[in-house]
Amino acid sequence: MKLVIIGGGSSYTPEIIEGLINRHASFPVSQIVLVDIDEGFEKMSIVGELAKRMIEASGVLIDLSWTTDRKEALKDANFVSTQLRVGGLKAREKDERIPLSHGMIGQETNGAGGIFKAFRTIPVLLDIANDIHNICPDAWMINFTNPAGMVTEALLHHSPHKRVIGVCNIPFNMQQSIAEVLEVNPSAVRIEFVGLNHFVYGKKVYANGVDRTQEVLDRLIDQVVNYSPANIVNLGWTETFLKSLQLLPNPYHQYYYKQEATLEKDVKSYEENGTRSEVVQEVERKLFELYKQPTLHEKPKELESRGGAYYSDVACSLMSAIYNNSHEIMTVNTLNNGAISDLADDSVVEVNCVITKSGPMPLVTGALPSQVKGDILKMKAFEELVIKASISGKYEDAYLAFLANPLIGDEDRAKVVLDELLEAHKVYLPQFNK
Amino acid sequence: MKLVIIGGGSSYTPEIIEGLINRHASFPVSQIVLVDIDEGFEKMSIVGELAKRMIEASGVLIDLSWTTDRKEALKDANFVSTQLRVGGLKAREKDERIPLSHGMIGQETNGAGGIFKAFRTIPVLLDIANDIHNICPDAWMINFTNPAGMVTEALLHHSPHKRVIGVCNIPFNMQQSIAEVLEVNPSAVRIEFVGLNHFVYGKKVYANGVDRTQEVLDRLIDQVVNYSPANIVNLGWTETFLKSLQLLPNPYHQYYYKQEATLEKDVKSYEENGTRSEVVQEVERKLFELYKQPTLHEKPKELESRGGAYYSDVACSLMSAIYNNSHEIMTVNTLNNGAISDLADDSVVEVNCVITKSGPMPLVTGALPSQVKGDILKMKAFEELVIKASISGKYEDAYLAFLANPLIGDEDRAKVVLDELLEAHKVYLPQFNK
Amino acid sequence: MKLVIIGGGSSYTPEIIEGLINRHASFPVSQIVLVDIDEGFEKMSIVGELAKRMIEASGVLIDLSWTTDRKEALKDANFVSTQLRVGGLKAREKDERIPLSHGMIGQETNGAGGIFKAFRTIPVLLDIANDIHNICPDAWMINFTNPAGMVTEALLHHSPHKRVIGVCNIPFNMQQSIAEVLEVNPSAVRIEFVGLNHFVYGKKVYANGVDRTQEVLDRLIDQVVNYSPANIVNLGWTETFLKSLQLLPNPYHQYYYKQEATLEKDVKSYEENGTRSEVVQEVERKLFELYKQPTLHEKPKELESRGGAYYSDVACSLMSAIYNNSHEIMTVNTLNNGAISDLADDSVVEVNCVITKSGPMPLVTGALPSQVKGDILKMKAFEELVIKASISGKYEDAYLAFLANPLIGDEDRAKVVLDELLEAHKVYLPQFNK
Amino acid sequence: MKLVIIGGGSSYTPEIIEGLINRHASFPVSQIVLVDIDEGFEKMSIVGELAKRMIEASGVLIDLSWTTDRKEALKDANFVSTQLRVGGLKAREKDERIPLSHGMIGQETNGAGGIFKAFRTIPVLLDIANDIHNICPDAWMINFTNPAGMVTEALLHHSPHKRVIGVCNIPFNMQQSIAEVLEVNPSAVRIEFVGLNHFVYGKKVYANGVDRTQEVLDRLIDQVVNYSPANIVNLGWTETFLKSLQLLPNPYHQYYYKQEATLEKDVKSYEENGTRSEVVQEVERKLFELYKQPTLHEKPKELESRGGAYYSDVACSLMSAIYNNSHEIMTVNTLNNGAISDLADDSVVEVNCVITKSGPMPLVTGALPSQVKGDILKMKAFEELVIKASISGKYEDAYLAFLANPLIGDEDRAKVVLDELLEAHKVYLPQFNK
Repeated sequence: MKLVIIGGGSSYTPEIIEGLINRHASFPVSQIVLVDIDEGFEKMSIVGELAKRMIEASGVLIDLSWTTDRKEALKDANFVSTQLRVGGLKAREKDERIPLSHGMIGQETNGAGGIFKAFRTIPVLLDIANDIHNICPDAWMINFTNPAGMVTEALLHHSPHKRVIGVCNIPFNMQQSIAEVLEVNPSAVRIEFVGLNHFVYGKKVYANGVDRTQEVLDRLIDQVVNYSPANIVNLGWTETFLKSLQLLPNPYHQYYYKQEATLEKDVKSYEENGTRSEVVQEVERKLFELYKQPTLHEKPKELESRGGAYYSDVACSLMSAIYNNSHEIMTVNTLNNGAISDLADDSVVEVNCVITKSGPMPLVTGALPSQVKGDILKMKAFEELVIKASISGKYEDAYLAFLANPLIGDEDRAKVVLDELLEAHKVYLPQFNK
Repeated sequence: MKLVIIGGGSSYTPEIIEGLINRHASFPVSQIVLVDIDEGFEKMSIVGELAKRMIEASGVLIDLSWTTDRKEALKDANFVSTQLRVGGLKAREKDERIPLSHGMIGQETNGAGGIFKAFRTIPVLLDIANDIHNICPDAWMINFTNPAGMVTEALLHHSPHKRVIGVCNIPFNMQQSIAEVLEVNPSAVRIEFVGLNHFVYGKKVYANGVDRTQEVLDRLIDQVVNYSPANIVNLGWTETFLKSLQLLPNPYHQYYYKQEATLEKDVKSYEENGTRSEVVQEVERKLFELYKQPTLHEKPKELESRGGAYYSDVACSLMSAIYNNSHEIMTVNTLNNGAISDLADDSVVEVNCVITKSGPMPLVTGALPSQVKGDILKMKAFEELVIKASISGKYEDAYLAFLANPLIGDEDRAKVVLDELLEAHKVYLPQFNK
Repeated sequence: MKLVIIGGGSSYTPEIIEGLINRHASFPVSQIVLVDIDEGFEKMSIVGELAKRMIEASGVLIDLSWTTDRKEALKDANFVSTQLRVGGLKAREKDERIPLSHGMIGQETNGAGGIFKAFRTIPVLLDIANDIHNICPDAWMINFTNPAGMVTEALLHHSPHKRVIGVCNIPFNMQQSIAEVLEVNPSAVRIEFVGLNHFVYGKKVYANGVDRTQEVLDRLIDQVVNYSPANIVNLGWTETFLKSLQLLPNPYHQYYYKQEATLEKDVKSYEENGTRSEVVQEVERKLFELYKQPTLHEKPKELESRGGAYYSDVACSLMSAIYNNSHEIMTVNTLNNGAISDLADDSVVEVNCVITKSGPMPLVTGALPSQVKGDILKMKAFEELVIKASISGKYEDAYLAFLANPLIGDEDRAKVVLDELLEAHKVYLPQFNK
Repeated sequence: MKLVIIGGGSSYTPEIIEGLINRHASFPVSQIVLVDIDEGFEKMSIVGELAKRMIEASGVLIDLSWTTDRKEALKDANFVSTQLRVGGLKAREKDERIPLSHGMIGQETNGAGGIFKAFRTIPVLLDIANDIHNICPDAWMINFTNPAGMVTEALLHHSPHKRVIGVCNIPFNMQQSIAEVLEVNPSAVRIEFVGLNHFVYGKKVYANGVDRTQEVLDRLIDQVVNYSPANIVNLGWTETFLKSLQLLPNPYHQYYYKQEATLEKDVKSYEENGTRSEVVQEVERKLFELYKQPTLHEKPKELESRGGAYYSDVACSLMSAIYNNSHEIMTVNTLNNGAISDLADDSVVEVNCVITKSGPMPLVTGALPSQVKGDILKMKAFEELVIKASISGKYEDAYLAFLANPLIGDEDRAKVVLDELLEAHKVYLPQFNK
């Protein structure tokens, strides 16, 4: 079995390697190829050498190599994971800094920054999906490039390759944290997730089949559960909010329901430490120093401070579940097909799925909960506008996507920030400069 | 034919009387009864005397009287118009002042103020609809009490009386103004409206059947067309906005798409002149002084500065169209039944309808335009939460309605403003104080 | 204004000419071109000469000519009517005779015969629509070729030309007959039609805006109303049927709800007189004898026995309503867009529409009546399979269409009749013989 | 854990007892109460004595008793299974004989017979569900009374008890037979079922996650797979049918797609052996003779010829899966909630579900396959009419249900057979004789 890791020079790669080593008995990968672009070759070599040392130390038999020749790498692949950042952390810095400088949240998923990440990323991933379709059509493409939901929908609508699954660590993190609170094994917890990537809610929490939603909501009020990842704020939810909502929000919901407080905190943090991207660049610099050490044979603890903990773990579990036709329930981004009955069949949603050899099969969730129906429908309509603009490269489409974003809204600010970001990211947006 | 005007002490009543006099040949009303509550009796008497003088001066034969006995008045009614304000302009003042004092737009239709207007109004209008159902079940209830869309949906879902139509002057005003710009007769203009009350868009403008949408959009950029009513701001739309949107916004859309500028202007105007309500109270005081003059035999020009111009005119035209089975196309609030294919059949929408003796028959508009789909869906979901809270009187429902409003959003501000408004309007919200 | 009549050699043409002459004041057609294929040239010449005499006798100024050069004829056309029969009445004879010989209703609209009429017709009309799109893109294509509903859906889905309207005389006939019964002017009657071509029901009957549905249903029981056209059986409906259905069936519904009696009558009539097609061939032969007489200057009375009475009249009224942007309500086949909320937006339905210069705008009818919901949904799914097979030319698709037809159903009979019809119509089905 | 078996005097009861004994380790039922009506007491006593002997012989500890006091029996129940036949086999005899005597298929599920089974059964099961709701609200009601789909929908729409699941042995039988053909373990086979009870199709067949649909379809042509239950005809499918359909039909589909051949065979078999009901009555007589033998300590082999093989087995597996929160995939009748995106959320469908302690969670199947969309939609609309008539007891509703049935259709025959069945079953249809 062959796995290709596109964006292999990422600092996260050691985590995925660790995951593959640990699962080798049940998910026997025999060949791994890291792929990156020329600019990433040096980092990929450092990561590749570390990965080789990790494999050797573990005693499992995996052949690992790295290359910048993507087409060559894809030959006979069974799984292709994609974890890339067009423009690198420098681009993310702009995604965050420019909106913040106009008093607007600049987060990299669904806000203004996320829109531009989509604009830069979607055309590149469409190219990759086309290559997969031509070279290894039976391979599963496991995308964990953000904004994962929009990217997955763009791929499933606009590429001929249909074996695409989007993954995010948020649902997994929530399950882990809630298991801790309920003092049960994470595998005993099932959360009925409903929504979209970075905009997913937990409708019900079951532990060993018993509904314990109310208990978890009560504990969230007292801040006992804290499942925010390292990279975003953690302000907590009020009793009024949780008692009214009767749903588990995810940490990203703070950007929407606590917009003012979040913005204030982000601005303050920006003034003190620069953007999150600048913090991460420093973390990465140190990580690569570590990776270079020839005595290092394992994923260093320091990687956890990087923010995307469990991401690679989620991807490994998913690939193993597909390979083994395990019928485990996992929360992924896939075609709706009725899972959320208010959304179109061909919308991409983040819901619980039974994982089989022929892909994820969503479990139905029925109609959207009335208390968040409007927010989810608006977010999906916004996503559709972003995808449209990513492909058309039309200024008007980009402007409409900005206008439709719940963190932007205002037409005057939309134009200012849009224009500045378009200029800043020019080199990575050929479709807007035809 | 008998018409009952509930809220008959309103300063608008002379307009409706004028409309009925002018249409008497084709819409021969023979009896009008004004109805108001005890607190409004004095104003109703003033208006009633003026109305009597107007009728006399016109020479038409209409028997006009006034009473506070609603049930008695409703006997044998063919049409019942409702134009009331629970708590009067003092309540509106609080609707506006309290949100503004927290830096939040306090407008009386779909914002925080509008939510409380719904909370106060819906139970009262449900009572009236029940009376109509019991006393004069064949009568048409023509509601122009705001928020007209939500009120109409609440009545159609929760009262047994199904002959209810909601009217608003916005679509009519837009048609008048655009006819002026295109230099054609208003009756030659047909705008394809799609959306919800105070959140309606014009998809296409036809003059004598010819599509002139593009021309109208271009003229809007240059500010040639100004169809804002007197009571709201008029900031104008940018070229980027209109060229991207490719739809005619209505003046209320400024609250959503130009939230910052609107808020700024409202705050400034509030600091200079108090709330719009306070301005209107002064206008009303002067109007009633005028109305009292026994030499006045017609609707005074000064009424036009009151803001709701054409409202009563629209209502008269509608009643006449029903009576005459005229099959005219008018824009009203009624059950969707497929007119907007993204919304539920039993949602109330504001769309073009063919008016018949058996009520309005909506014309289809197809799927929502993608560029505003999310906004309209969110607004409808918000409306549903407001209606639910209006009836349940539960704090959590009211909070969810606040959270879902696009002008509020933030959970912290939502609670503060909600709590203050609940306290301020206590006496008019028995359902919240059970 | 220029009108092109494709299938101009039809025996119906004098009716359309008469309609154009009578409406000339309000709908001033200045040029008519008849178009037919080589095989039809002789008949077209006969009809053309008659038409010229009719125009001359009437004194209106219309330039009429005929040609077999379709592309040339289409230049500058404003309206194109299509009334053709691929394979002529000989093909219809097979459509009827072959199913009947297997004890199956062979009617030419939605049954086995209608399926093959669709197979033969759809590719030809797609060619015509493509020509219109290229040569006279602003022209309205008025199709009255059967099966009109399926043909219209095929054109709107598979041709680039979107100005296509399908017409049928059934709703018009029903309106005429019911007006007679109610002793009112036909224009005072409005029937709320809902359904598909040849499968349309009347939900409500209004005369001058007053609901008289119940009265009409009662009269139908007593056979007072008889709105069957000449070409189909007329067995009448039982009291039980009408009291349960609470809808006005159309005459074609006899094929579905009275399948046994209809089959029996058709078989008997076939044994006595041959198929309806053979009867019509004889009628046509006589009609053309008449048409040839140089003293004939008007549409002969005998044309009425031909069966499609009013068809051309309906088409003329429709073109005039478009030209005059008249906003009349007419019942046509057009895109659903929500008119029937259980069907897809892009399904073609037969419903009431307001006719404007920019086309028909359907009035909503809401959800399908529960008592016929299943039948209409099945019929639409069947239509989709027929259209698919018409274009793909795949045997399996044709078989699935047969299987899905409510008059066929049985898989064994389906194959036998399908195979025989495929063989019989071979020459007109190139798509099935690639 | 306590299980109540309503209709406990059924000849099938030994099978369910056997199932419970075999599963006792994982599904430790401690108390079983059989319940029947007075007329069934004798048979129930015979079955009860046999069950006691079976339990004793097995060595498991289960306390078994029987009673005609349903309310008493329901106290503290965890599961309630319902397997009853209002009017007994004599009523079924009429369901079959009367339609057959008019040349109409009289099958007991979805045809004319099935409609009357629904009319007799639904009110009785609603009573039972109400009792469960009041006495043991946490109990799961496992219904295997036919027509199981309609009964389940009636209960979920019209009773306050929501823990209701309908089961049928058809999907289970198909899985068993196909496993045999593919020479794999039944648990390795997953068939993607989509549709309604007795009208379910297999979309895809997976063995160990590998798609083997095509292979199974090919084998069906050659008659290698025969998964018809004992009680219905088995005519086989043609190559044309299967190659076109590209779906696995279930044996009941013969009644629809092979209506003529099935009718012929049923009539012939009726003339030779009487109705299936009469055959079964003889089988039952012999079974009860066997059951009485005090030396019998196990389910006799002869029970298998009774026709409903595996039915009780399916019910036992389902209860065990719920109890153990097993997350197994089983095919049951439950609320749609989007599983089939063309049907309403609150329709009952037969689809694959993950079984949990809180009930079945359907897996999405997307839009209906186009080749059977019309048939399934029509069948669901028919079911809705049957349920409506079962409860209203209105003649017109019953007639509309008959008219909507694909095996009846013709309005003349509908009335004759309806009237005769209404008369024949009078005593069991109080709602029609108010």
